[in-house]
Amino acid sequence: MIQQNEIVIDALELSSWDREFVHLLKKGGVTCVHACCGLWENARETLRKIGEWHRFFHENDDLVMQVFQGSDILKAKQAGKIGVILGTQNTSSLEDELSLVSVFNQLGIKVMQLTYNNQNLVGSSCYEEKDSGLSRFGKLVIQEMNRVGMIVDLSHVGEQTSLDAIAVSERPVAITHANPSWIYPTKRNKSAEVLQALKENGGVLGVCAYPHLVNGKNTTLEEFCSMIIQTVDFMGIDQVGLGTDLTLNMSTDFLHWMRMGRWTHDMDYGAGSKENPSWPEWPSWFQTPKDFPNIAEGLIQQGMSGEDAAKVMGGNWLRFFTEGFKEDGQK
Amino acid sequence: MIQQNEIVIDALELSSWDREFVHLLKKGGVTCVHACCGLWENARETLRKIGEWHRFFHENDDLVMQVFQGSDILKAKQAGKIGVILGTQNTSSLEDELSLVSVFNQLGIKVMQLTYNNQNLVGSSCYEEKDSGLSRFGKLVIQEMNRVGMIVDLSHVGEQTSLDAIAVSERPVAITHANPSWIYPTKRNKSAEVLQALKENGGVLGVCAYPHLVNGKNTTLEEFCSMIIQTVDFMGIDQVGLGTDLTLNMSTDFLHWMRMGRWTHDMDYGAGSKENPSWPEWPSWFQTPKDFPNIAEGLIQQGMSGEDAAKVMGGNWLRFFTEGFKEDGQK
Repeated sequence: MIQQNEIVIDALELSSWDREFVHLLKKGGVTCVHACCGLWENARETLRKIGEWHRFFHENDDLVMQVFQGSDILKAKQAGKIGVILGTQNTSSLEDELSLVSVFNQLGIKVMQLTYNNQNLVGSSCYEEKDSGLSRFGKLVIQEMNRVGMIVDLSHVGEQTSLDAIAVSERPVAITHANPSWIYPTKRNKSAEVLQALKENGGVLGVCAYPHLVNGKNTTLEEFCSMIIQTVDFMGIDQVGLGTDLTLNMSTDFLHWMRMGRWTHDMDYGAGSKENPSWPEWPSWFQTPKDFPNIAEGLIQQGMSGEDAAKVMGGNWLRFFTEGFKEDGQK
Repeated sequence: MIQQNEIVIDALELSSWDREFVHLLKKGGVTCVHACCGLWENARETLRKIGEWHRFFHENDDLVMQVFQGSDILKAKQAGKIGVILGTQNTSSLEDELSLVSVFNQLGIKVMQLTYNNQNLVGSSCYEEKDSGLSRFGKLVIQEMNRVGMIVDLSHVGEQTSLDAIAVSERPVAITHANPSWIYPTKRNKSAEVLQALKENGGVLGVCAYPHLVNGKNTTLEEFCSMIIQTVDFMGIDQVGLGTDLTLNMSTDFLHWMRMGRWTHDMDYGAGSKENPSWPEWPSWFQTPKDFPNIAEGLIQQGMSGEDAAKVMGGNWLRFFTEGFKEDGQK
């Protein structure tokens, strides 16, 4: 069981937030969630998304609070609220403007994935045929993210761009939601080479329950926890966390926006496939955020110590985010 | 003389900021300036302006610091830096989106003039022939500014919109840079009715040295200080400050942008005229920010007490901004 005083952090969720969803997070013992605040949005559109989150925070300030620095995660827990870290799964909000890194950091976009599913001004994605690595602009973006305390996320980023980004970054980076590709071979999962580089960089990998990145809805809890333990064996106990990629209450319209943005007029299946084109069905042991304790129990049933399970459930992300988000970063 | 421990606040400057300009402010004993960060800019363009300011703050952090709350003004003084309050002379950055009030507040846009020189989504300007007052959206914008601790500025705003805004605002508002129109009759200066409403609202008026709003470059220091004293007689000693509207080192291109934006293809003279179309020449006693002590001395020479002069030079704005910018406003 997750202890009352434990920290549980989910390093990526794409769910539709309402009060009922927040109550499910509380039932699941969740302390803090990194919530996706943008996929393909440009600067102006990202302002709108942030404005919508401001409204959500204001109207639900008895239940949630925005996290700007590590200490806010603990403040949220003490206040009995869910801490929300905003991030974008793309650098599209920056357009071609380096100064917007600090502007969006000031707005609390504390995590930015360098690319979503396509090549962009910064680098290339895991779905492009070729990946020529980090661009000139991309290097400067990472330096600026390092300076202001915004986390570099490589989850959907291509192999070469990921390796380049880890080499350029002077601070630990994150892969908030992906799995080792030697366990579940998909384009979205990560090679041993990238994960070795992440390990040496001091970064953290969030293992992902998104059905298309494991064995679909039939993935058992034992299988998922076995994957976590194998990942810990590779990365070390301090560098693995959770990033479920949970997508609760999301519409088909949103699915199409998520996959196709406005860059294609034809169907693109993202992590799905022609045979499996819809929102995936989730395994029985992870239907809603109230099911987080199942993962902790699964780890312990496979012999992981309570202390180690607590690191995976949230302790590692707490340390990583506390060090990564500079306290004076909002400048 | 301005005492070493005195607070000097200029409630509006449009100057081009560089290190030399900051040194002139320091020589003039200035503590804090409300700097114009936008005239006609939309949301995206305002992000660019804020990004440029971020860069200026970062590259000159030995000399300047951004002010988010009243206590920052005192911190700046203690650190020997110039405090900079960012504001926009328009609500154009909000476009039609109420949530952007809190977004720009979080970015430190702590003062927003409801309209610049033209009618907009919020209300009307002092240069429009007719002013039907505050719009439906305008009322909501003021309520939201009240909520987050952003100051409503009425300097260029039309008569009816100003009266409506003061009636709607639950918090004191500002006229950061204008003079009584019964002393200097121009469209930009303010009627007794508006200033009486401002007085009753608890707001502050920043008297303005912009040559077109007084008697041009030949305005004497005695005349300017006499105007301040008459204004104090009307408003009370606690509700008058400075808002020089100083425009140092600004280009003709910027003058045209300031006056014509992209709303006209023909010359518009703003506060100037066909006979006087350029940047105005400033009086000999106020050529640069190092000349602020001249104003304090002028007030004292006309019999104002040192204590009262200190209120006009900055004490009143310090109190007003400290109360107006909520400490927890960045939410």
